[in-house]
Amino acid sequence: MIQLHHCVSARSFRPLWMLEELGLPYELTLHDFPPRVHDDAFLAINPLGTVPAFIDGEVCMTESAAICQYLAERHPEAGLDVASDEPAYGDYLNFLHFGEATLTFPQTLVLRYSQFEPEARRQPQVVEDYSRWFLSRLRTLEPRLETRHWLCAERFTAADVSVGYALLLASYLGLDERFKPHVRDYWARLQAREGFQPALQAQQAAAEDQGISPTASMEGR
Amino acid sequence: MIQLHHCVSARSFRPLWMLEELGLPYELTLHDFPPRVHDDAFLAINPLGTVPAFIDGEVCMTESAAICQYLAERHPEAGLDVASDEPAYGDYLNFLHFGEATLTFPQTLVLRYSQFEPEARRQPQVVEDYSRWFLSRLRTLEPRLETRHWLCAERFTAADVSVGYALLLASYLGLDERFKPHVRDYWARLQAREGFQPALQAQQAAAEDQGISPTASMEGR
Repeated sequence: MIQLHHCVSARSFRPLWMLEELGLPYELTLHDFPPRVHDDAFLAINPLGTVPAFIDGEVCMTESAAICQYLAERHPEAGLDVASDEPAYGDYLNFLHFGEATLTFPQTLVLRYSQFEPEARRQPQVVEDYSRWFLSRLRTLEPRLETRHWLCAERFTAADVSVGYALLLASYLGLDERFKPHVRDYWARLQAREGFQPALQAQQAAAEDQGISPTASMEGR
Repeated sequence: MIQLHHCVSARSFRPLWMLEELGLPYELTLHDFPPRVHDDAFLAINPLGTVPAFIDGEVCMTESAAICQYLAERHPEAGLDVASDEPAYGDYLNFLHFGEATLTFPQTLVLRYSQFEPEARRQPQVVEDYSRWFLSRLRTLEPRLETRHWLCAERFTAADVSVGYALLLASYLGLDERFKPHVRDYWARLQAREGFQPALQAQQAAAEDQGISPTASMEGR
C-alpha cells in the first residue's frame, strides 16, 4: 500500500489531495513540523528529512508536484493526467512546476521569516519582498481563469492540485484577501473538489490519532 | 522554429542546454537581467516578465524544468526522457523538480541578498540560512552519485540538466568549493556533456550580437 509522510497543511498536502481524488488506499504518517530531521528512522526513509516522503513499492519520491504527476500518470482513467499527445501537454507540465517553484517557494519565505523564526531572526523586508513577488506572479493567472474553470485541458488535473496547494498556503498566510476575482472564484472551485475536504479530514483524523497538533505546521513548530 | 528568451546563466540556461543536447534549431533572444519586466513587447510574450520564455508553435512555457521534460518527451530518440514504463520514472520526475524547487530557489535568495539588492537591503542572515539549506540538500545526492554516473535510469537525462543548472549556479556563487567528492565529479561530467559547452558558447555569441554584457545576470543587473 502507498505510504505518505505528511505534516499538517505542508506541501505533502498535494499528494494527499491527489490520493483522495483518485480514491486510492494509503497509509498516512503525520510528523510534527518541521519534520523530524534528527529522527534516524525517518532519515532512513528520506535523507532530506522533509515531507512529503511518498513510497509506492520500489518508488520513493520527495517532491510534491512530481508525485502529483506520477499519480496522475499511473491512473489515467481519472483524467487528472494530460497525455503528451494532448494540445495542453506543455501547459500541464508548466503549471505543475509553476505551482511549486513560482507560487509556493516564495510563500515559504513569508512563513519562515514572519512566523517560524524566533523574533530576533525575523525579516520583515523579506516577508514583504516575497509577499509582493507571490501576488504579482499570481496575478498572471487572472486572464486565464477569466475564460477557464481549470488551468488547462478544460478539466481538473494534477496541475490544479499543484497550484491549488499554493492557494491553500496563501489562505493560511492571509494573502487570500488580496486575490483578484477570477483567482478567488477558482480557489472556491478547488475547495469544492471531491478530494479536497476528505484530504483535510484525513489529516485532521491522523493528527488526532497520532497526537499531533492539527495546526502544527501553521504554528511554526 | 523554437524561440527561447534567455538571460546569461539564468534558469533559461536549462532549455538552452537541452536544445544543444538535442541538436535542434532555435532562435535565441537575450535580455538584460533582470529581464524586461517593463517591456510591453516581452510582457505580451510572457506576462510574468521572467526568463525562460519558450515558444514552440502554439506552446508557450515559462518553467525551465518543465521545458526540459517537454523537449525530452518530444525527442525520445535522444534518450533524455524517461518513459512512464521505465523503473526510473518516479526518480526522473522527482529529480526534475528537485533541481529547481530544492536546489535552485534557495540559491536565488543567496544571489539576491548578497549581490542584486542595493547595499542597504542586503541580508547576510538570509544568505547564510539558504547557503546552508542548499548545501545540506545537495549532500543527499552524495551516496547516490557514489554508485551512479547520472541521477537515474543509468543514462544522462533531462533530470541531470535540471540539477546540473543548480550546480552551475552554485559555481558562480562560489559554493562549488564546498561540494563533496562525488558531487564534484558529477559536476565535472556534466560540464563535459556534448551540449554544455556549446550552450555556453551560444549565449556568449548571442550576448555579443545583441550588445548584452556576457556576465550580466551574474553582476546583479
